[in-house]
Amino acid sequence: MSIVDKYVNELKSLKIDQMYKNDFFLTWEKTTDELKAVYEVADALRELRRNNKSTRLFDSGLGISLFRDNSTRTRFSYASACNLLGLEVQDLDEGKSQVAHGETVRETANMISFMADVIGIRDDMYIGKGNKYMHTVADAVREGYEDGVLEQKPTLVNLQCDIDHPTQVMADMLHIIHEFGGIENLKGKKIAMSWAYSPSYGKPLSVPQGVIGLMTRFGMDVCLAHPEGYEVMEEVENIARNNAKESGGTFTKTNNMAEAFKDADIVYPKSWAPFAAMKERTDLYSEGDSEGIKELEKKLLAQNAEHKDWECTEELMKTTKDGKALYLHCLPADISNLSCEKGEVEDSVFDRYRVPLYKEASYKPYIIAAMILLAKVKNPAEVLEKMAQSEDIRFRG
Amino acid sequence: MSIVDKYVNELKSLKIDQMYKNDFFLTWEKTTDELKAVYEVADALRELRRNNKSTRLFDSGLGISLFRDNSTRTRFSYASACNLLGLEVQDLDEGKSQVAHGETVRETANMISFMADVIGIRDDMYIGKGNKYMHTVADAVREGYEDGVLEQKPTLVNLQCDIDHPTQVMADMLHIIHEFGGIENLKGKKIAMSWAYSPSYGKPLSVPQGVIGLMTRFGMDVCLAHPEGYEVMEEVENIARNNAKESGGTFTKTNNMAEAFKDADIVYPKSWAPFAAMKERTDLYSEGDSEGIKELEKKLLAQNAEHKDWECTEELMKTTKDGKALYLHCLPADISNLSCEKGEVEDSVFDRYRVPLYKEASYKPYIIAAMILLAKVKNPAEVLEKMAQSEDIRFRG
Amino acid sequence: MSIVDKYVNELKSLKIDQMYKNDFFLTWEKTTDELKAVYEVADALRELRRNNKSTRLFDSGLGISLFRDNSTRTRFSYASACNLLGLEVQDLDEGKSQVAHGETVRETANMISFMADVIGIRDDMYIGKGNKYMHTVADAVREGYEDGVLEQKPTLVNLQCDIDHPTQVMADMLHIIHEFGGIENLKGKKIAMSWAYSPSYGKPLSVPQGVIGLMTRFGMDVCLAHPEGYEVMEEVENIARNNAKESGGTFTKTNNMAEAFKDADIVYPKSWAPFAAMKERTDLYSEGDSEGIKELEKKLLAQNAEHKDWECTEELMKTTKDGKALYLHCLPADISNLSCEKGEVEDSVFDRYRVPLYKEASYKPYIIAAMILLAKVKNPAEVLEKMAQSEDIRFRG
Repeated sequence: MSIVDKYVNELKSLKIDQMYKNDFFLTWEKTTDELKAVYEVADALRELRRNNKSTRLFDSGLGISLFRDNSTRTRFSYASACNLLGLEVQDLDEGKSQVAHGETVRETANMISFMADVIGIRDDMYIGKGNKYMHTVADAVREGYEDGVLEQKPTLVNLQCDIDHPTQVMADMLHIIHEFGGIENLKGKKIAMSWAYSPSYGKPLSVPQGVIGLMTRFGMDVCLAHPEGYEVMEEVENIARNNAKESGGTFTKTNNMAEAFKDADIVYPKSWAPFAAMKERTDLYSEGDSEGIKELEKKLLAQNAEHKDWECTEELMKTTKDGKALYLHCLPADISNLSCEKGEVEDSVFDRYRVPLYKEASYKPYIIAAMILLAKVKNPAEVLEKMAQSEDIRFRG
Repeated sequence: MSIVDKYVNELKSLKIDQMYKNDFFLTWEKTTDELKAVYEVADALRELRRNNKSTRLFDSGLGISLFRDNSTRTRFSYASACNLLGLEVQDLDEGKSQVAHGETVRETANMISFMADVIGIRDDMYIGKGNKYMHTVADAVREGYEDGVLEQKPTLVNLQCDIDHPTQVMADMLHIIHEFGGIENLKGKKIAMSWAYSPSYGKPLSVPQGVIGLMTRFGMDVCLAHPEGYEVMEEVENIARNNAKESGGTFTKTNNMAEAFKDADIVYPKSWAPFAAMKERTDLYSEGDSEGIKELEKKLLAQNAEHKDWECTEELMKTTKDGKALYLHCLPADISNLSCEKGEVEDSVFDRYRVPLYKEASYKPYIIAAMILLAKVKNPAEVLEKMAQSEDIRFRG
Repeated sequence: MSIVDKYVNELKSLKIDQMYKNDFFLTWEKTTDELKAVYEVADALRELRRNNKSTRLFDSGLGISLFRDNSTRTRFSYASACNLLGLEVQDLDEGKSQVAHGETVRETANMISFMADVIGIRDDMYIGKGNKYMHTVADAVREGYEDGVLEQKPTLVNLQCDIDHPTQVMADMLHIIHEFGGIENLKGKKIAMSWAYSPSYGKPLSVPQGVIGLMTRFGMDVCLAHPEGYEVMEEVENIARNNAKESGGTFTKTNNMAEAFKDADIVYPKSWAPFAAMKERTDLYSEGDSEGIKELEKKLLAQNAEHKDWECTEELMKTTKDGKALYLHCLPADISNLSCEKGEVEDSVFDRYRVPLYKEASYKPYIIAAMILLAKVKNPAEVLEKMAQSEDIRFRG
């Protein structure tokens, strides 16, 4: 009996051959089996590390990262995942590299990939651009591989785009699975993905969109709540609706936070900017209209200020299932009386959930590592079994 | 007979069980046995590397670094130490990460530590803040470990704070031990830790404080010399005084450089800013008073200029023991006629001691690696013996 | 029969003992045997990686990089080469480190090298300075090694200086060797190293100089073409002339692009700045004369604009050998109608050669790795054979 038997047996029952040599862009482009495979491999890798097994899949190789936005959590999660598998992170710092858009993306993608096994990209600021850019890169290296320029096809991992934040919401989901004792227990559970007030503006839509796009896959009742005017991408709502239908769950919308929280098993209160405003901002940026951007910002902050009552309070928490719904956040949260005067969540609520919140975040490195492993390895079950049986250990102390 | 027998035997005689899963903040928080253990392990690791033995304690794992001040020497020493043990350095660049103070330190510390085995921090600029910040981080990850958020407790290594610079002065000390043929030979040796003139201002107090706090541990006669007004932290002077009493050495003070140098076996002439001024500067910074800072700088430069005669000259060196005291410096030094018109040391003196100075610096990577190993490993003697006997080599050429 | 027999046998026939513990500055400082050794080792390493063999020469160790100019291709090639051999890259970011010139270069070089096996430097902007700086660093660490400060001598690899760009042109050459089926087939082949128009100014001379300095070594007919006033360093022209004489090839010059392209087997059309202007710019920079620099830039751009007809067109390509000369470029190229209105090369020409161009670039990581291996290893043939026979693999999937 090996320590990964449980995960490996589950893995063997899943149809996942399309993951091999593939990329990870959006969760709804993956089958349910493929998503489950990510969870099983993530858990198996965690179990291996806990048992001091070496999980080095690579003896050498680079993990390229490209962050077009400041990042701590995802940057370190990606670095941890690469390191766990034996890859060295090499950051493509555009400031030091002058990587331009257009035709040259294809060239740069190949130039940095001669020994790259994975490319992780964060590009979440501009609507209609981030995900597209990632595809341009992925297409370029696939072509380079097919043309014999690259000796391996680097797998692309979406570290947050304008549409989805798959490594975040997959980690959120794995946390839920663990908290509820298994994916099979999620049927009928209610999750409230709710907008919440923040004194800042322009937070990306990728988390709420990612949540409704993913959580609807497993028979849950997903309720999206926000003030009028804070709509997310319509196409993602449609995906959520279809997911719910297929999985036997529901997808509902409301402009009432209390309604969303009522009897919820899980709550995810978080600020975001209206899709329409993000689109407008994208256009203003591409026109270089800094006056327009300033005005938009002012308008959005004023709009936000009208909804200061959208706060995850103790009172609201009491209305959730047995008064103790699982509170989720991608962090950092705007905490009232702590990081700001008035924010997304009351400080006592946040404080009570601090440990589970940190655990939620702790799944991300394993989720990313699992995405990489499943794209690189033809027979992941066999590879995990070998790691479990090997004498190679992580820490020789 | 293994190549590390000598060190391992010594190590076995020391009481060091409190080092396991602990941190390294200040040398005077460590017992003499614990300090000795660092020297033995540092020497053993150097011997292993010299004999082409692999010293990889880790197969994977991250060494986090956080430099709140420019650094070349310590940055590369830390990177070397991590690499020597098999850890990959991941730098937390606050510019790219927006790490804030206060409550969020606790969060960030956990977020970056899911696969971190060590965190090295340099935070030396502000009195009353650097060491405190390090404790906040260390407390946070200890708590995260106890709460099950982190699967290992990262050890914290102080890479220079407002009070002490333990990796520097421990390296200085190991250099002295080698130069004098053993720690047992230091009894009664005189070391002059002397202020010296520099055309710049605001150099940290952590080196002189670290020196008097450490060198008084081994029965040496430590003489602290500086012009009036250049006092260091009183609490560290008290520690030095107590250390001297316990170790059978002495701790004396003088405002006369010549007196300090007279018959000294070792001299450490180096500029620093007055403690009172550094405190004032800290307050001005926290008030954002840039006018006040400029004025303070002006005042301090003028004050410095009154003491241009505090220079380590050939003449002064002649008055030391047999005219050939060991000259120490943490580098870079302000060298008269070379890096500046008038500085801490005459160019011919510096040049004569160049090779020993570089050797002094060469101990730092091993000191840091030893601090890490002793915090991570329950039985360091056994681990070092295994490394010595293993077939794994560093360089396969 | 091992997969590297072919390369190893060739390698054994070459006299290369001077490469051991040496550096790589300029190709013309190396014997033909030494250059050939780089090609054999580069090809062998590529073959080993293709066959999933581990090529880790080092279990631990640092590869220091110092880029005094933006870089993507060379930065990633160097990182790939280090990683392939088991070294971790540690970048010396002068912005974060305040490395000064003069005497302190010697100190800094030693301080960063305690565990460094290789130092790669790019310093190509200022005439008379880059190569000189590299020698200062190499001398410093050699001295440090001899003095017992460093336990290994880091090998210096020139990642582009003011005179030569050896890793680039060696990769170009290995591409040619592969395209023409062997170094022995190059005799009598014509290569046109031609200036081409670019809307930018101030591109380094190191590529054209490197090309004429290297390609004349193997009996080729090297033709250097540029408009009047775009002369390269006279001393490199003399080297090219002597090389050609010795190798049985020719070195000719022309101010006519068509003449250079006529019947050429290989063409390398690329913009560069006149040597005299680069020298002037170097002086203006050292005088801090920003007005003068602006004026010089204006003058050079105007001068460039007179030669917009120096473009690698389809028409010109038709005049090459059988109309299908091998088109080379170090990338990125200024492509007409794509990256600029009018540039070095017509878009359809560039597009037709895209795959070979990317392959040309793909040799650089292996060239750098070969340079390192040959400097670190006394018996490279034996080391490569061991890698081929070892059970250690790169990817365990």
